[in-house]
Order: sequence, then C-alpha cells, then structure tokens
Amino acid sequence: MSKEKKLKVIPLGGMGEVGKNMTLLEYERQILIIDMGLNFPEDDSPGVDYIIPNISYLKGRNKDILGVVFTHGHYDHIGAVPYFLNKIGNPPLYGSPLTMGIIEKRQEDFPNQPKLNKIVVEDGSKIELGPFKVEFFHQNHNIPHNLGLFIETPVGNILHTSDFKFDKTPQNGPATDFKKLEGFGKKGVHLMFSDSTGSEIEGSSLSEKTISENMENIFKSSKGRIITATFSSLINRVQDIFELSEKYGRKVVIEGYGMKTNIEIARNLGLMKIKKGSIIDPKKAGNIPDEKTTIICTGAQGEERAALMRITNGQHRFFGLRKGDTVVFSSSVIPGNERSVQNLRDDILRQGATVYHSKMMDVHAKGHAQSEEILKILEIIKPNFLVPVHGQYSMLVKHKELADATGIPQKTEILENGEVLILTPEKMFKSDETINVKSVMVDGSGIGDVGGVVLYDRKELAESGIFVVIVVLDRKTKKLQNSPDIISRGFVYLRESQDLLAQTRKKTRDIIKEATSSNKKAGAQEIKKEMERKIEDFLYSKTKRRPIVLPVVIEI
Amino acid sequence: MSKEKKLKVIPLGGMGEVGKNMTLLEYERQILIIDMGLNFPEDDSPGVDYIIPNISYLKGRNKDILGVVFTHGHYDHIGAVPYFLNKIGNPPLYGSPLTMGIIEKRQEDFPNQPKLNKIVVEDGSKIELGPFKVEFFHQNHNIPHNLGLFIETPVGNILHTSDFKFDKTPQNGPATDFKKLEGFGKKGVHLMFSDSTGSEIEGSSLSEKTISENMENIFKSSKGRIITATFSSLINRVQDIFELSEKYGRKVVIEGYGMKTNIEIARNLGLMKIKKGSIIDPKKAGNIPDEKTTIICTGAQGEERAALMRITNGQHRFFGLRKGDTVVFSSSVIPGNERSVQNLRDDILRQGATVYHSKMMDVHAKGHAQSEEILKILEIIKPNFLVPVHGQYSMLVKHKELADATGIPQKTEILENGEVLILTPEKMFKSDETINVKSVMVDGSGIGDVGGVVLYDRKELAESGIFVVIVVLDRKTKKLQNSPDIISRGFVYLRESQDLLAQTRKKTRDIIKEATSSNKKAGAQEIKKEMERKIEDFLYSKTKRRPIVLPVVIEI
Repeated sequence: MSKEKKLKVIPLGGMGEVGKNMTLLEYERQILIIDMGLNFPEDDSPGVDYIIPNISYLKGRNKDILGVVFTHGHYDHIGAVPYFLNKIGNPPLYGSPLTMGIIEKRQEDFPNQPKLNKIVVEDGSKIELGPFKVEFFHQNHNIPHNLGLFIETPVGNILHTSDFKFDKTPQNGPATDFKKLEGFGKKGVHLMFSDSTGSEIEGSSLSEKTISENMENIFKSSKGRIITATFSSLINRVQDIFELSEKYGRKVVIEGYGMKTNIEIARNLGLMKIKKGSIIDPKKAGNIPDEKTTIICTGAQGEERAALMRITNGQHRFFGLRKGDTVVFSSSVIPGNERSVQNLRDDILRQGATVYHSKMMDVHAKGHAQSEEILKILEIIKPNFLVPVHGQYSMLVKHKELADATGIPQKTEILENGEVLILTPEKMFKSDETINVKSVMVDGSGIGDVGGVVLYDRKELAESGIFVVIVVLDRKTKKLQNSPDIISRGFVYLRESQDLLAQTRKKTRDIIKEATSSNKKAGAQEIKKEMERKIEDFLYSKTKRRPIVLPVVIEI
Repeated sequence: MSKEKKLKVIPLGGMGEVGKNMTLLEYERQILIIDMGLNFPEDDSPGVDYIIPNISYLKGRNKDILGVVFTHGHYDHIGAVPYFLNKIGNPPLYGSPLTMGIIEKRQEDFPNQPKLNKIVVEDGSKIELGPFKVEFFHQNHNIPHNLGLFIETPVGNILHTSDFKFDKTPQNGPATDFKKLEGFGKKGVHLMFSDSTGSEIEGSSLSEKTISENMENIFKSSKGRIITATFSSLINRVQDIFELSEKYGRKVVIEGYGMKTNIEIARNLGLMKIKKGSIIDPKKAGNIPDEKTTIICTGAQGEERAALMRITNGQHRFFGLRKGDTVVFSSSVIPGNERSVQNLRDDILRQGATVYHSKMMDVHAKGHAQSEEILKILEIIKPNFLVPVHGQYSMLVKHKELADATGIPQKTEILENGEVLILTPEKMFKSDETINVKSVMVDGSGIGDVGGVVLYDRKELAESGIFVVIVVLDRKTKKLQNSPDIISRGFVYLRESQDLLAQTRKKTRDIIKEATSSNKKAGAQEIKKEMERKIEDFLYSKTKRRPIVLPVVIEI
C-alpha cells in the first residue's frame, strides 16, 4: 500500500464564531498559516480585552512554519499578530499594502516586538511556500485590499474566498472580477473555504452604490451639520462621505483615534483621495456654518468612550449636539450592542437631532455574501469539497444546507475549532485527532493568565460585591483583640447601613466566642471557615444577597 | 377669571423605555393610578434584580389615592405591586381575572403583604372613582384579559389603548371589537394614550392565526420530539401548542416554574382548555415515543437557568437533546439577549436538532400595534390630543411623526417620566413642574439601597477584581509586625502569581518603611493612602490592570 498524500486542515479559530480567524494547512509537517485574528469577549468575561486563538499546537514547531498569509486588515483576521510573532519565530507575513499597513501601525502599541518580516502582495501576486503555491486575488468586502487565496497543494487546489461579497458597482476600488473566478473554477478546485457570515440572510448584499445614493439624499436634504458614525475600518464608506462633503461644499472634521489612524494609513497608500482643504481642525469647526460641516466619527456601536457618545453626552471638547443636526449611523449593530445603540439614538433624538440608521434606510451595506452570492460562487468555482468558514455555528449549518441543495460539492463538512480535517486527492474526512483550542484571554498585559476561577470571581463580585471582616486574636487565648474591622465594596452603601455593620460585628464576636469556647478550641483556619460560612448566611438572611465573604484572622 | 378645570397627567415610568409602566391622573388632588410595573436592569447595573418607579410623589398622599387600574398581567404593568402596596395604603386594585390572578400568585413570594383589596373587572365593566368614570374594554395583545380604558374626567374623555394589536383572527379569545372602538370615538375622546412599541415597524402585526398555521406545519413534518420555548405569559400560544399536540397525538410535558404557574392560573380561570391526559409527568416522558412528545418550556431568551438551557447543556434532570428533536423559539429576542440566544441555538444545532425561530419563519407574532394599526386607531378614535406611551424615546418620536402626518390630533406631546402634563377642556400643555423619578433598584430584599456608588464599585470589581493588603504595625514605633497579608479575588490566578505577590509584599514593606521614616512619620491614615496609591500603580505597571486596592492597617 503506497502512502497516500495527506493534507491537514486545522482551524484554530473562526469556526462557530465570528472572530479570531486562524487556520493551518499542514503538509508533511510543513505549516502554512492563514490569518491570525482576535475576538471580542462576551458579557460572561468581564474585564477581558480580547480573546485570541490557542497556538499550543505550534509550540516547538517554528522551523515548520512557512509563513502567514493574511486575507485582509480586519482585527478578526490580524488582531493576534503582536501576541504571536515572538512565539512562532517571527515568520514571513504576506498581505496587501493596507493589511500590512494596519498590522505595522498596531505593532507600535506593543513592547518588545520583532522587526516585521513582511512581504507585500496584491491582486495577482503569486508566492511559493514549501509545497504551497499561493495566488492572491481581489475580492470585494467592506475594506479595500481584501484578497482571496488560490492555493495549489500536492493534494489539489484550495480556494479561500476570504470575507467577500459580490459588488458590480463598488464605490472605491475594482468590481468583482468574475472572469478570474471562473478561471480558478476551470483550473479545478478541490476544496473551497467560503464565507458563511451572511448565509442566513436571503438574497444578495447591497452594493456600495446604493448606500452612496441614499447618503447623497441625506446630504441634499440636511440643513444643519451632518454627523456620520461608522467603523473606522470602512475606508470606502469614509471615502464616500468625503466625496459627498466635497460635492455639497462641506468641510470635514475627523473624530476618534481609530478613524484618524485608518484615514492616515489609507491616504498614505493612495487608497483615499481627499481634496486639499477638505479636512478642518475641530477647533476651527465653530467658525464654519452648520450647513457646511460634516463630522466623521467612531462610536456607531454606542461605545462608552467613543466620539459620538461624547458628543451626545456633552463631554466632547469641541462639539455638542443641537437641533438641526443630522446623525447617520452608517453601520450595522453588532449583536450584544443593541441596547447601548438604542439608548444612544434616544439621547440624540432627545436633543432634537434627526437620526438615520440602517433599519430605517439603507445607509450601510454588510460586507458579507448572502445566500444568493454563496450559491453563485459555488456555481462558478464548482469545488469538489466545501468547508463553510467564518460564522456562528448556525451560519455554517445554513451554508451547508444551501450547498447540499445545489448538489455541486460532493461533500460539505462543518468543522469546529480544533478539529482536524484530512484532505487527500480523493477524499475529505475528519480525523480522530483534536487539537487544544481552549480560548486564550488577553487582559492588560497578561495573556492567558485569566481563566475560569478569576472570571467566576469577577462575576460573583459584580453580582453582590465583597465583604471583608478582619479580626485580631491573641495567639494563645484566641481572645478577640479588636472590634472586628469591616471593609465592603459593591454590597450595600455602607454609610446608610450602620445598623447592619453593627449587627455583623456582634455576630462575628459571637462566632469567635463559640468557636474558641473551651469545648471547641478551634484554630485560626477553622475560625476563618466558621466566619465565612456564618457571616455569609447572616448577610443573606438580612439582605437576600450573597457577597463574597473574606474573613481575615490575624494572630498576635 | 374663573378657575379653569385642570387635570394632571404624571408618568412615573414607561416613557422612553419599555418597562415599569405607571401613570397618575390627578384631579383636584385625587389620584387615579394606571398600572404599577417593573423594568429589568441593563448591563450597567450588575446584581440588580428589578427597577421600579419612584413613588416619592405619592408620599403622604394615601388618602388622595382613589385606586389602581391595571390594563393587563405583564410584569411591566403589574410587577411593582408587592413593593408599593404597603407604602400607598393598600388601595383598591381593579383588573381582569387573569391580571388579578397573576398579581395574587406573585404576592405569595413576598413577606408582610396586606390582604389584596381587589375588584375583578372585565370587558364592559364600569367603575366610578372620585371624579373618574372608567369603562374597561377588551383589546387584543399576546396575553388574554387585556383591557383598554375609557375614562370620563371633568376635563374630557381619556382613552388608554393598553398594549394592543388588532387581530381579526386571534387563536384564543375574541377578535378586536371595532364597533366598540368606534363608539368611543363617537362619544369624543379628548386625549388618547396609545401604545408606541411597534411604531418603528411598518405594516400590521401578524395574526395569531398565521402563527398557528406555521406551527401546524412544524407539527406535521417533525418526526421526533417537538420542544417549544416561549414566554410563560403567552397563554394563547401555549394553548395553541396544546391544541396542536392533541390534534397530532402528542403528550405534553410542561417545564419551567413560570410556565407551570401561568398555565395553572389560566386553567383555573377557564382560559385554557386542555384535554384530560394531555399533560404528562416529565418522569414518565421517557416511556412515550419521541414522535408523540411535545415539551413546552421557558428559556427562549437564552436565560442561564431556564429549562431550555438546562435541556441543551445536559443539566436537566429528565431530558437531554438528541438528533431528530425539533426546537421552536416561539418568541422575539429581547434586545440585549441576542448573543445568548445565538449561542443557545448553536449549541442545539451542534447536537443535531432542528431549530426554528422567528427570523426564519413566522413562529411568533409580536403583541404590539405596528405603524398601520397605530394609524388605524387614530382614524377610529380621532382624539383631540395624543400622548404616545410605552416605548423607547425613538418609538415615541416615530409615533408622533406618524400622528402628525395624519393631521388628526391637534397636538401630540412626547412626555418623559416625571414631566407633568396639564389637560384642560381646551388645551394640553407641559407644566414647569417636574417630579423626582430617579429609578429605584431592587436587589434581594433591599429596595433603593443600591445606588450609584455600589454599582460603580461592582463594575470596577468585575473589570479587574479586588486586592486587599493587610499590615500589622506597632502602634508606637509603626514597625511592621507581620509579613503583609494579601487577599485577592478576580484579579489574577493567585497560585500562578507567586512572584507578583512576593514583589508586592516587598513593595509594601518599602512603602511602610518610607512612610514611617524619621522625616515623614506618617499616621495610620496616611500610611493607608500611600499604600493604596502606590500599590495600585505598582500592580498596573506589572499587569496593566487596575484592581480595587484596599489597604488594611492594624495597629497593636
């Protein structure tokens, strides 16, 4: 029996989630990495900044890593770079000019980073990395310089769509090149990885042209300032707002750190064209009439410290809202942010401004293929096998259902993070092997040091606070030497709870008296345990709340 | 100048929010209360159970309170009852049989409640309370026994729609009685309070009949168990699921405390008709084939402890999920719950079950009038004045826009909680007076004792935890008598942070040595302050996190 050629596909992130995309292709121990993204924590992880993939599989494998290819510059595809480079031997990084620009800019925020080993690629670039030949090709999305991957491997060709949508009339950059896609189809695609984010939405995604037309109507009809809030990564949208402002004689103020940074990167790469004099300093915006002013800012998700929130709350240095202003939320709402966004919109309306958002009018186009586009790329590429990527589990399932109904792929496999898919020239199947992909949490400068115990405590603390009781005992007699000290945070308002504190002190004295009585003679550990249990019960009986009770016993 | 008749309208809750509805009508110091609801806290209020209206305006006014009229039995209309009855002199309560049934049942969970002073009313009932004559009339919503209010007052007639939708083909209970509504219109309505919750949704709400037809298709096609998750208050939906189960030969298991309670109340009132033998004990469900089993449960919002979550996680005593099961989410997702619901659906799909939810198919009808119904009731009633109620601020604004465009009301006024509206036979205008409506938080048995400081601390604790450092000093020499004790929760995993702890102990010794050096001679308070500031900075420099640092200085 001759040894069959085998390629391993190992998703370390991005399956069953929208976030932290990272996939390994491994052939004869040589590893090509696709993307290294991060995810944002859910409500059940208070204090956590980011979640990054678990790369324990790569430990000790530096010499096997051929390089990293990046599809585009969104944080769910590049955000883990500064956490990983030193750990995987600073391999070569391949990405488009904008992708690499964003990666480089971000490196500045991190200490002890190696010099980037970067190779800039573009539509049509071909590279060879060990057994893999990669051709990069333009795909439309909501960030420029987005690249799909056509990868020739010893077991057959693999096509990775990247995040994509079809757009025949994009606002900035080229339209979808269907000819090129057909060419890949003709070469034969063994396995396709295809974006699933929009699979549950019927029809096709909107073109940026439609959005631009609607935005133009807002520019035509608004008499006061126009304040547009969007993601700082939506370079094309921002470009469009500049063009409209220039057309309608408005000066533009840019607000928000991320917005400024991304505009700067995009301008330096020639990706944005802004006329001289279009941008004005926020300090000077007061000199310009309202009907000649546009503000482009961050904060469309209702983020607490972003520009739009500060403008609305009157906490911005230069701007407040006023009657006559028009505020456009040019973004979709990320699940989980609905309440913050609703509250922000309400507060804007309360001040007499007009609000537009994408549920009222198409002022935002999603960046992902919807059901019809998912079917269309299947028709064009006609892969033997399909692996839906980039989506919550329900989106992967829907993608598979769509694909199964076409009969095009012989097989569609839903993968979870850490599962290992084997691809041979003939077959695709899941291996029994699984990889440790337990999420790694980033909190401050700590990577992976926040785990279940710490998060559990944080949630308990948030629920009912903490209650510390400190007693000083005589080492020998165990007699109480002080009035028990109580420190509490997040439990009750102490100044108005003097009664409860006095009762708890008395209770503590009783507990110690009992524990150290002649027939019990408890030691410090036992006394602590008794205090914890009994004070907890006591506080619950009085308040129906369960703060974390921390007894401190000091013996002198 | 003769004294003009004046009626005050004072919303204590329900304006600019969906929740804690409570409005006062006051005429010559006599007060009629409409509804007493609660609201659920947002993410920024950890540990808080409920939010209830502020009734400080009613303090000392017991003798002026004529009574409380309830529109229906949802918690945002009745949930504050047990917190208020004792404070406002246990006034008479007027409500439909189901409304009063739910109120009474809930009273059992609260200590020291007075005997309810209840008067049961129904469609067509008329009562007279001081200067107010109230006629109750049936309105369709998603709970039975929902009553609108037609109130004759000395300044003119007021019509309160209650939460409503028009439904010509409801599943359980009567259809909308347009004749009766027209009758009120003909009598002349001076002011209408009308439901705004659905104002931002175009068209008309779905009829329960459509939902039932879709549910029936699911019953026809499902081969395994059908698990339907819905709100326990959606009595009509639950009735429908029973009827379908009976029709298709399935036995029904009821899961979830709220579900059991509400079914019991509704059955006792004859509001639900369930055939003998339809309900089976969960313990015996295992003896019945899957295709003959329906489970009705709570938990469609992804609530952590609800039945559906426990079934999905394998933590339920009797049921686990399996391939072939069909799970129907027959409810809309409450804003803020999107991520939990998505995760729950994903986990169900992972186990091979089929999922239906209202974004895929109409398996839930909202209970609120949408734009067309809002316009239709305006046409029928033709009020002089309109006050949109029951909605986020953006919903009230949209409602006003809809009304303004019709030209029917002479004036539409958007009210905020605590504003005072004056209604005279001629006019409607806002008074300069405002009422204190600062929300009151309920946490455990504490009402109003959790405020800004406590919530701020809880959020800080959740973010980075707490770090307590205890030092024992000699009262005279201020020399350190122990190795500083450290207790920490929610900050870092202590067992893996022995280095950091050792460094912090050393740092603490240095701080104390410096503070108590011969030229500083700090006292205990100053030492504490120094410790707090310097340990905070030290921990931030090491971890980029800011736990709450609590120094404890004990002098012996």
